Amino acid sequence: MKSSIVSIGTELLFGQIVNTNAVYLSQQLNELGFDVHHHFSVGDNAQRLKDILEYALERSDLIITTGGLGPTQDDLTKETIAQLMGKELEFHEPSYQRLSSFFKKRNREMSKNNLKQVYLPQGCIVLQNDNGTAPGFIIENNKKIVISLPGPPKEMRNMFENYAKSYLQTKSSHVIYSKVLRFFGIGESALETELLDLISSQVNPTIATYAKEGEVSIRVSAKAKDENEAKQMIYPVVQEIKSRLNPYLYSENNEELVEVVAKKLLEKNITISLAESCTGGLIASELTSISGISKSFDRGIVTYSNISKVEQLGVNPSTLEKFGAVSEETAKEMVIGLKQKSKSDLCLAITGIAGPDGGSPEKPVGLIYISMLYRDHLQCNSYLFTGTRERIRKQAVLSALNMIRNILS
Amino acid sequence: MKSSIVSIGTELLFGQIVNTNAVYLSQQLNELGFDVHHHFSVGDNAQRLKDILEYALERSDLIITTGGLGPTQDDLTKETIAQLMGKELEFHEPSYQRLSSFFKKRNREMSKNNLKQVYLPQGCIVLQNDNGTAPGFIIENNKKIVISLPGPPKEMRNMFENYAKSYLQTKSSHVIYSKVLRFFGIGESALETELLDLISSQVNPTIATYAKEGEVSIRVSAKAKDENEAKQMIYPVVQEIKSRLNPYLYSENNEELVEVVAKKLLEKNITISLAESCTGGLIASELTSISGISKSFDRGIVTYSNISKVEQLGVNPSTLEKFGAVSEETAKEMVIGLKQKSKSDLCLAITGIAGPDGGSPEKPVGLIYISMLYRDHLQCNSYLFTGTRERIRKQAVLSALNMIRNILS
Repeated sequence: MKSSIVSIGTELLFGQIVNTNAVYLSQQLNELGFDVHHHFSVGDNAQRLKDILEYALERSDLIITTGGLGPTQDDLTKETIAQLMGKELEFHEPSYQRLSSFFKKRNREMSKNNLKQVYLPQGCIVLQNDNGTAPGFIIENNKKIVISLPGPPKEMRNMFENYAKSYLQTKSSHVIYSKVLRFFGIGESALETELLDLISSQVNPTIATYAKEGEVSIRVSAKAKDENEAKQMIYPVVQEIKSRLNPYLYSENNEELVEVVAKKLLEKNITISLAESCTGGLIASELTSISGISKSFDRGIVTYSNISKVEQLGVNPSTLEKFGAVSEETAKEMVIGLKQKSKSDLCLAITGIAGPDGGSPEKPVGLIYISMLYRDHLQCNSYLFTGTRERIRKQAVLSALNMIRNILS
Repeated sequence: MKSSIVSIGTELLFGQIVNTNAVYLSQQLNELGFDVHHHFSVGDNAQRLKDILEYALERSDLIITTGGLGPTQDDLTKETIAQLMGKELEFHEPSYQRLSSFFKKRNREMSKNNLKQVYLPQGCIVLQNDNGTAPGFIIENNKKIVISLPGPPKEMRNMFENYAKSYLQTKSSHVIYSKVLRFFGIGESALETELLDLISSQVNPTIATYAKEGEVSIRVSAKAKDENEAKQMIYPVVQEIKSRLNPYLYSENNEELVEVVAKKLLEKNITISLAESCTGGLIASELTSISGISKSFDRGIVTYSNISKVEQLGVNPSTLEKFGAVSEETAKEMVIGLKQKSKSDLCLAITGIAGPDGGSPEKPVGLIYISMLYRDHLQCNSYLFTGTRERIRKQAVLSALNMIRNILS
């Protein structure tokens, strides 16, 4: 089934917001087995909206619109679609009741213009809005389907997920099911080379690679009559990929590296503490973004100045003088000092040069040392990253997390 | 001048990438005084691309396309546009030279399909690509202008900024210049209420408000014949806004709160240390994202467990027992302990419940205490935030940064 997405709102044409709605809906429609042929964005202008909708209706069996359902004069979506599909707008009592109680619950007076939202096209399927005031709707006419969703992403996603998706499933003869494998420690082109024969010979399932901030993902997607059949088609391909790239694989379920690490720490009841210099608390802040990590994470010490390395971690001033703050020796003393304070099962310390200043020919920007003490096993790795300060810090965080993942595996 | 943006690439229709090109170009075009009427996204399909370009050409004086200029069979943009504009493709010697040296520099063999990129429409203005292989171009015909740029954002932005923008400036009779003011500590609707008379009466300059994670921005935009005139039109409006909302204003130059705080610390030569519980190193990691902050930032201590608060900061165990880890008493002892260790001019400590678990009727999720010791002045503020763990942590970080900003002002 051919489909188009029409995003309505002048703020899009000013470049004030990124059109994440079109991304989300494209992913959803593709997974549901619809072919997306066009995205359109158009402002709050009746004539241009009408023209675009006519163009899209000529070329698509399904159109999803977002935006323009609100209470103001600018919001023209419903009126324009109703007119094009030859329908009148009707007062919809259940939507009125929902709207009234929405305002009552919040102790707010409902201004008159809000009533506009409860007039909906004759014979449509009304989609209720759990996160806002404007209901959405589905109209079918002459084998064409139009689905109108609100513009705010939270309202749109909830309405699509809970009310529109099940309707679309009945209209599609197949599904596209995907599995995302995530890798660390291998570049995109090296990974692609390992899989070149698979990638070029596979038609269904397909294999696609994506790179993002030092990580690489592989999406394996199968088109099948239902999810079960797709899963069965995907299974042997995933097994083959795993057999070739297992050392680099850290998630089969599209998880972040920090989620995988946090889960392992909690499962195995391992306590952890961190000493950070160049990453300045970034590893601690990522780890503590995971709810429940307090059972495992004891403390983090951000020793940015030299004196703080001495005072907080007992690094020997002569080590700093002789080898410098960015050295294997300092990294090791940091982690040993941390262990003496925290007694955590796993202690990790990191020191390096995030740049853009502070580098030298012997110690360039991007040089990072990570030391780890797990029970009584001490190791220290060094890395040389390139790019911006932000990228170097991000790479350092991922490398530290990956060291933890490896030792816990 | 009416304009449209056409984004070309099947990956857009799969929802694999976010269309940031359309956002960037919309902002640029609006600032240059062009009205953007449509965005289109279309896949690598010759017929559908031709249809969309015809539609856009009928309705726009200027079309900017992105994508589809590369060396593969899929890349059809140039051929389709040349055909629509009645032009042949010609071999372009300077582009060939650039391409050859691009490969030579990288010690890579140039495969034959790359040559496709140096055939360009007759009579076009060629736009060189400083970050990649595919040149772009401008064609003018029958008072219509088409500008084709490559798809990768880095290549596209560089080409637009350095080669297309100056061309467009000659086509526009006016500019739109904007100034963005950023506020903290006031909600969007409260801020709008303060400015309602201004917002509704202003036509040029216009005033628009935006909300984002607890911060609010105001964009004041003027349409004028040049930037100087626009600046003069904006000045009195900005002064009026400042006179009404000055206590909340933290930047007149669209800076992040953390940038403003870091700049103040460095300017005034003030050293700072942090003790974080619920934010888990997030304040330290934000502050250390600023290059050069090592002159001011001494250390951060992430005391996540109770025992670490005692051991690292000297919090009295009886304080923790009597008042709890999330209390004004603990926050104050944390900051006093931190000061004894670090001797920094400014010490800040934060403790709270980020959720979603760990709340109680007396101490709900979102309760945060922030204590600050600046020289010998001790203060402690409490906050109650709502929302997700991520949002509560973010609000806590912003509130801490704002406390620092206030005391340094």
